[in-house]
Formats: sequence, structure tokens, C-alpha cells
Amino acid sequence: IMGFVSNVKKFFDKAWNLAVNEPKKVIHCLKVGLALSIVSLFYYTRPLYDGVGGNAMWAVMTVVVVFEYTVGSTLYKCVNRAIGTCLAGSLGIGVHWVASQSGDRFEPIILQASVFLLAAAATFSRFIPTIKARFDYGAMIFILTFSLVSVSGYRVDKLVELAHERVSTIAIGASICVFITMTLCPVWAGTELHHLISTNLEKLADSLEGYAAENFRVDGSKSLNEKDPSKRLQGYKCVLNSKAAEESMANFARWEPAHGKFNFRHPWKQYLKIGASMRSCAYCVETLYGGINSNTETPEFLKNPLNDVCMRLGTSSSNVLKELSSMLKTLTNSTKLDILVDEMNSSVEGLQNALKTLPSYQHIPTPDPKTEEAPNGTEESILKPTALSLMEIVQMATLTSLLIEIASR
Amino acid sequence: IMGFVSNVKKFFDKAWNLAVNEPKKVIHCLKVGLALSIVSLFYYTRPLYDGVGGNAMWAVMTVVVVFEYTVGSTLYKCVNRAIGTCLAGSLGIGVHWVASQSGDRFEPIILQASVFLLAAAATFSRFIPTIKARFDYGAMIFILTFSLVSVSGYRVDKLVELAHERVSTIAIGASICVFITMTLCPVWAGTELHHLISTNLEKLADSLEGYAAENFRVDGSKSLNEKDPSKRLQGYKCVLNSKAAEESMANFARWEPAHGKFNFRHPWKQYLKIGASMRSCAYCVETLYGGINSNTETPEFLKNPLNDVCMRLGTSSSNVLKELSSMLKTLTNSTKLDILVDEMNSSVEGLQNALKTLPSYQHIPTPDPKTEEAPNGTEESILKPTALSLMEIVQMATLTSLLIEIASR
Repeated sequence: IMGFVSNVKKFFDKAWNLAVNEPKKVIHCLKVGLALSIVSLFYYTRPLYDGVGGNAMWAVMTVVVVFEYTVGSTLYKCVNRAIGTCLAGSLGIGVHWVASQSGDRFEPIILQASVFLLAAAATFSRFIPTIKARFDYGAMIFILTFSLVSVSGYRVDKLVELAHERVSTIAIGASICVFITMTLCPVWAGTELHHLISTNLEKLADSLEGYAAENFRVDGSKSLNEKDPSKRLQGYKCVLNSKAAEESMANFARWEPAHGKFNFRHPWKQYLKIGASMRSCAYCVETLYGGINSNTETPEFLKNPLNDVCMRLGTSSSNVLKELSSMLKTLTNSTKLDILVDEMNSSVEGLQNALKTLPSYQHIPTPDPKTEEAPNGTEESILKPTALSLMEIVQMATLTSLLIEIASR
Repeated sequence: IMGFVSNVKKFFDKAWNLAVNEPKKVIHCLKVGLALSIVSLFYYTRPLYDGVGGNAMWAVMTVVVVFEYTVGSTLYKCVNRAIGTCLAGSLGIGVHWVASQSGDRFEPIILQASVFLLAAAATFSRFIPTIKARFDYGAMIFILTFSLVSVSGYRVDKLVELAHERVSTIAIGASICVFITMTLCPVWAGTELHHLISTNLEKLADSLEGYAAENFRVDGSKSLNEKDPSKRLQGYKCVLNSKAAEESMANFARWEPAHGKFNFRHPWKQYLKIGASMRSCAYCVETLYGGINSNTETPEFLKNPLNDVCMRLGTSSSNVLKELSSMLKTLTNSTKLDILVDEMNSSVEGLQNALKTLPSYQHIPTPDPKTEEAPNGTEESILKPTALSLMEIVQMATLTSLLIEIASR
């Protein structure tokens, strides 16, 4: 029993931490509560209830189903629900009219067949990627409304009136949702995406810097940096795993109107490209970190000549990333970037020069084949970062050009 | 107009290809149609309609919302819907009783406040990761049902009867869904996950083999292999991007009963671990392929000594992966694996030995500093794969131990 109590306590602690760390989410919860309270007023106040009647249920349902965390996803659901309902409603009434003309015998058969066919077709359309991205929810609502209209048409007489009432209550619910999400502390999917990408850039820069500091540090002060690497490891892991989040946000951001610094047709797809280049950078960093864990200790005589250059390359690369991140944040084109890129390129050249002189170093400490083992291991561990860094620069060049493109908008 | 027509044609072509390539999805669509037809029988046949009345709407709605592609996700939604509805229904009736005891004046206030508080709390619980993974849908249904019950309780008199009818129609809809998904060509999330992981292992093996063949090929016959690398590139990219799919499938697979070769408590989490190790292998492969694109051409005199060993290492690693994949497919522990791992390890040693002899080779072709540039580039491009391959072996050791663990179940 004590174990259960402590589990419950742990759970509430976690929930409390979540609430403290992300007040936006708490505000969202209150917004949901508010929207539901407003909708339920339709039940409690007599004049409103007389207007919509028992169909007020549909307004409540719309609010619960449609209200989402970001403005973009709420709009996406509202628009989809509206399109799906109207399309299916009119089609349903049409089919109902055809069926009612064809006699009592055929009526249920026609209705059944149409439900079967249209439901199958709409379900299939949800598997097609382009439709799935934009109208997945709409297709589901289409099936729902169409089957409801066509089957209840068989028993209910005033079908058009029913449909009209239902559509108007759904419209009331949807407009309350849209109004509340957009006015009270709105959470824009676009802004979130922008923020995610720029923090990810920073995290990547930190990881890279941390790697350089960890691997090429001159003194052996491991105890001081003990905590940092693990925290920085987390940093680039975020970049690795953020693909799904980025895609869904970019998808929702497309539905949002102009807000803040962003126009309606802000190039959200570019953000996905930046995300992809960042991810390939992060793959390199992952491979570099993998090297740390499996490496044998690097002997000093070989480490020293390359140490400074590698360190400088790591720092300058991460400076470029940081500058890119701040550029992205302010949406401006910075001239400082060119200087930093030049610096980075010069440190790449420095490293290449240092490598050219390496072979002569290598032959000094090989008097017997036994000690030769060590330099080989070293060569690997130092050359690998170099080669990877070179590749990263290629990636970063792509990234840079993409960012400049965005910044120029 | 012609452009529009050709667009529409292209769209239908795509849809047709999808249908031909994945007949399971087409069958799923027909299943949805069938389930809806069965449910709508409640409207068309008089005795059934008299039993449930206008509430048959809820059965239709349940079928549309709950019917999903895999058995696991359908069960997840059914169970969630059942729990959410019952919990919220009983709570709603309780709150309604309390409110009705407290006089006409306070009744709407108590109802409003309870809706606000519970909706906010349930929305917040959806942000907590453990609840989100298992009961996200249930929390939404809880909000929906609770607010419907508490607000309609204000106007409807026979609340308990209404709730009872609604719950029974939902149960009818849900049981039809579960019956149809589990009997007609069931698509098990667990089986799909199993299949995904083993094909991904194969794709990884192909990519690795393709890389070895591409980079260390002896003759310069590029035109012959022109198509292969790009297809194989696709292979490991699937591995990189399959994280979200794996996680959701493992999540749904947990809800599934015993089927085929799998028991109820099959260790689905182990699959996620395999997926993670595969992804770190794929990061290495990505970095290797990145090397192909940026490399300068490797001169023959340096390539030849390492060529064979690298080629052997690539082939033996990919053999190990393929053996793992077939082991996973049959869920057996193969003795052949040990032999293959030994082979791989011996080729790693062979490569290390070849590297030891490299420095002497390196000094032969450096009469003037101008030509020294080339060997440096080469050294990088050959040593990097080596180092990476070594790391991959560490990854593969993890993978192997995980797989053996699963196979022993």
C-alpha cells in the first residue's frame, strides 16, 4: 500500500513540475474549461435554449473535439469539420431524395449501398499521403455525417430542418473555439516551430562545443566537466528526435493567419529543410560522441599537434551555428556571419595543413611494432573528427544558404 | 484546364498504385463499410429500432470514430471509450444529484463549476506523458461525456435511463468493431511492428553491403551500379525515420491479445530498443554515405592494400545483420550467428593489421609536398570507414544481445 501511495505522490510531483515548467499548457486547460462553460450556457439560459434546443449537444461536442493546443491545429480541425459536414450533409440529402423516389422496397438498399461505398472510399482517401496531411480529420467527419444523415433520414421526417439546426450549432461551437484560441494567450504553431528550430540550432552548437572541449581538452580535469557532457548529449538528441514534431507543426502552421512577425504564406517548408540539415549535422555529432565512448586514450605526443586546430575548428563551427540561431531568431541577415564562416574555413585549412605534417610525426614513435598499436588508434580518433567536421561544413553550407533565403523574406 | 485534368489523373494513378501495392488497406476500407452497414441495420429493421430508438446514432458514431487500421489501435480506442464513458457518466450523474439537492438557484452554478474544473483537469492530464501514451483518447471522451451528461441533465428528466441507453448503444457499436477487426483479415500492430523491424534490419544490411560495393569496388564500372546506391540509400533512410511509427505500433501492440506467434505480454519494448540500436547503426551508415559524396577520388596505390579487408568487413557485417533479421523473423536462436560474428571480428582484426602496415606505404609516395595532399585525403576517407565500422560493431553487439534475449522468450 505504501508503494502505491508513493507512486501516486511521484505522479503528482511530475504533474506539478510539468505545470510549473510550462505555464502555457495550464492556460490551455483553463481555456478549454472556459470554452465549455460558455457553450453550456446554451442549456442554462432559456432564450438561448429555445433557439437551438436539444441540438446544443452538438455545440458541446464540437468544442471538446475541436479545441486543440495550438491555433493552427484548432483552425485545421474547424475548417475540416465544416467542409466535411457540409459536403456530407448535402450529399446525404441528395442520396436520401433519390432513395425516397425509388419506392419503399429499394429505399433501404440504396441507402445501405451508398453508405458502404462512400465510407469505403473516404476511408481509402485517408491513406493517401497528400490527403492525410491536410484533410484526415475532414474525411472522418465526412463518413460520420454522411452515415448519420442517410440512416436517420429513414426515420426522421424533417431532415433538412434537422441538418440546418445541426450545422448552425456546430458553427456556434467552432466559432467559440476559434475566438478563444486566437484571443486569450494564443499558442501559434508557427511561432512554436520557429522557436523549436532556433533552440535546436543552439543545442547543436552547445553539443559541438562540448564535444570539442571534452575531446581536445589540454589538461585532464575530467571531474570539472563531468556533468556537462551528459547534459549536452541530451542537446543534440533533441535534434535527432524532433522530426515528427517539426512536421506536424509545419502542417498546422500552414492554416494560421498572419501573426507576429510572420505573414500568412510564411515559407514553413523551409523550416523543415533546415530541420533536415540540422539532423544530418546531429548524425555527425552522434557519431563523434560514439567515438568518445569507444576510444582508447590518446597519447600526448600525437594529440598535441592537432589539439589546438581541432579545438579551434570545433569552437568556430559552433560559433557559426550560434550566429545562425540568433539570425533566425531576429529574422535578419547578419554580416557577422560571413566573418565567422571565414574563420571556420580558415580553421579547416589549418587542420588540413596540420594533417599534412602528421605523417612525419607518426614515424617517430615506432621503434618496435608493439607500440605501433597506439598511434593507429590515435590516428583514427583524430582523423575521424576531422573528416566528419569537413562533412559537417558541407551540411552547414546548405543550412546557411537556406537560412539566408528565409531571412531575405 | 488541361493542367487540372492531368493533376486529377495523376492523383488517381497514385491512389491506384497505393491500392495495388497494399491490398490490406483496401480490405480495411471494405471492413469499415461493412461495419457501418451492419450498424445502420439498427435503423432499417423495425424490431431493432424499437429496442434502441434514436440513440442508434451513438452506435454509428462509435463505429466511425473507433474503427482503426490495426487491431491494437481499435482495442485501445474501444477500451478507452468504455472507461471514459462509464467514469464520466457515473461522475456526471453524481454531480447532477448533488446539484439538484442544492436548490434551483445554485444548480446551474454547481454544474458550470464542475464542468469547468473537470474539463481543465482532464485536459491537463492529457499533457502528462504516461497518460498521453495510454489514455489520451479516454481523457477526451471523459470530458465529452461528462459535459454532455451534466448539461443535458439540467433539461432532461430521465437522466439515468438516457445514460443507460447511450452506454448500451456504444457497447453495441464497439463490439461490432472489435468483432470485425479481429475476424476478417486482422491487421495486428504487433505483427506489423515485427515485420517492420526485420525488414529494416535487412535494409540496413543492404545499405552497408551497397556502401562497401560502391566505395571499395576494384574496377571502375560505375555505370553498372548507377541505380543501386540510390535505392539502397532509401533503405537506411527508412530506418532513420521509423521512430514515430515504431513507438505508436509498440504502444498499440500492448493492447492486443495473444495472436500468431506472440503471447499477450510479448516484450514489445525490446523492439523499441532494437529500433534504437538500428538507428544508431543507420547514423553511422548515413555518415559513411556522406563521405562518398564529398570525397576526392582515392588513388589506387593506397586503396589497394585496404580494399579487400574493407570489402570483407562490409560484407561480413551485412551478413551478420541479415542473419539477425532472419533469426528475428523465425523467432529462433541460430547457431550460424556465432560463426558469422566470429567472421566479422576476424575481418575487423584483419583491417587493424592492414592499418598497422599502412604508415610504411604512406611514406613511399611523398617525394615532394605537392603530391602529399592526395594521400591525406585518402587516409581520411579510408580510415573513417574503419573507425566507424568499429563503432558499428559495438552497436551491433548491443543489438545482438537484445535479439538473443527476445529469441529466448
